[in-house]
Amino acid sequence: MAQNIYDNPDFFTGYSQLPRQVHGLEGAPEWPAIRALLPDVSARRVADLGCGFGWTSRWFREHGAASVVGFDLSQNMIARAQADTFDPAIDYRIADLETLDLPEAAFELIDSALTFHYVQDFDRLIRMIHKALVPGSDLVFTIEHPIFMAAAHPHWLLDEDGRKTWPVNGYSVEGERRTDWFAKGVVKHHRTLATTLNTLINAGFALRRIEEFAPTAAQIKEMPALAEELERPMMLLVAATRV
Amino acid sequence: MAQNIYDNPDFFTGYSQLPRQVHGLEGAPEWPAIRALLPDVSARRVADLGCGFGWTSRWFREHGAASVVGFDLSQNMIARAQADTFDPAIDYRIADLETLDLPEAAFELIDSALTFHYVQDFDRLIRMIHKALVPGSDLVFTIEHPIFMAAAHPHWLLDEDGRKTWPVNGYSVEGERRTDWFAKGVVKHHRTLATTLNTLINAGFALRRIEEFAPTAAQIKEMPALAEELERPMMLLVAATRV
Repeated sequence: MAQNIYDNPDFFTGYSQLPRQVHGLEGAPEWPAIRALLPDVSARRVADLGCGFGWTSRWFREHGAASVVGFDLSQNMIARAQADTFDPAIDYRIADLETLDLPEAAFELIDSALTFHYVQDFDRLIRMIHKALVPGSDLVFTIEHPIFMAAAHPHWLLDEDGRKTWPVNGYSVEGERRTDWFAKGVVKHHRTLATTLNTLINAGFALRRIEEFAPTAAQIKEMPALAEELERPMMLLVAATRV
Repeated sequence: MAQNIYDNPDFFTGYSQLPRQVHGLEGAPEWPAIRALLPDVSARRVADLGCGFGWTSRWFREHGAASVVGFDLSQNMIARAQADTFDPAIDYRIADLETLDLPEAAFELIDSALTFHYVQDFDRLIRMIHKALVPGSDLVFTIEHPIFMAAAHPHWLLDEDGRKTWPVNGYSVEGERRTDWFAKGVVKHHRTLATTLNTLINAGFALRRIEEFAPTAAQIKEMPALAEELERPMMLLVAATRV
């Protein structure tokens, strides 16, 4: 079973105060980039893997999805999602992506935001998703970028010109990474970009678009702290079509 | 026109002494990984973009290619390739990949090793390659990895544990990078991994496999210096099929 850090009270308290949890999708600077990757969702049956508080699940319904099932490992998350949602076509369920088995050809879109890097068996997950999608339909997901995750000590350095610089080591050594983020020892699973993409191709997906999130000039003007995201990508966004 | 550093005498002298130039393909640790990406070349018409001394061009013919045309910007390279080749089905030509225009549907395989990062207009190049390939046939290429190329000062650092660490900054800021490598001010063009892959997809290629070269345990045993390549990828390998 995946580590359930989100039900750790310290973690949950800190996490709940992130702009993206307080303000929803508008608080996530990568949201416009994700939107640009999403197909027209109208009339689609959607699964939202790692749905958290349900912001994206609700957005899908507001944009015409036939139904949404949101899955999350965290009871806290699911309870809050249920409390904030008044839509009988959205169903929230507690589930572990290490073992979740969706019904065959039951969805026309599977979406996931910043969740798959918590999953150890990515190959199993992607093959399961492939089976659960109707042929010709879409998988769109974001994960922490392997550049962001690889190093033993992932934190900003300064180069000889005083420029913010991100350290990379152990890039090709895949596996567990433990970091402190609202709680000690949050477990993530580092995979190279090649492994992530080849796993999709091998499972029968065609890669439609890859993005490494970088803020726009307008976003940096509004929130200057975002400028550091130009130095190294924190997030990888992938859109793939189930062949 | 692309910078022609290879005809700079200092550069050429240093470059010619690299193991991969002295020993050919066996001197290039990524060669087994490239081979694994190559389709069966028998009876294919091959173009080798950035053919250098012709090692790969000759390998294609030795493995059954119908014909090979090797292109390189460097007169030195082409002269040496011609001097080392005794095969009427291999033709070497001086060409600039910024402007080269191959005939339509003239090749069943286009290959390129560590050359495309010298090209500024990658979109033009890839669309030209797409047109030059017979539908269903293959493009296989290697470039310097954007993790390797991005930083203003790309050189090893040590992290707080003394581990070799590679600096990344300016990753999302695409464009020229100047480094000193056998000569001052070698010009390369940094593109994000997303840009490289999306350019292929947009031109009408299906991505078949992506590799970020890492040495095997056996390679490290034979040449311990290669171990540092596990810390950060120096090369990106891409296999794509022209749809």
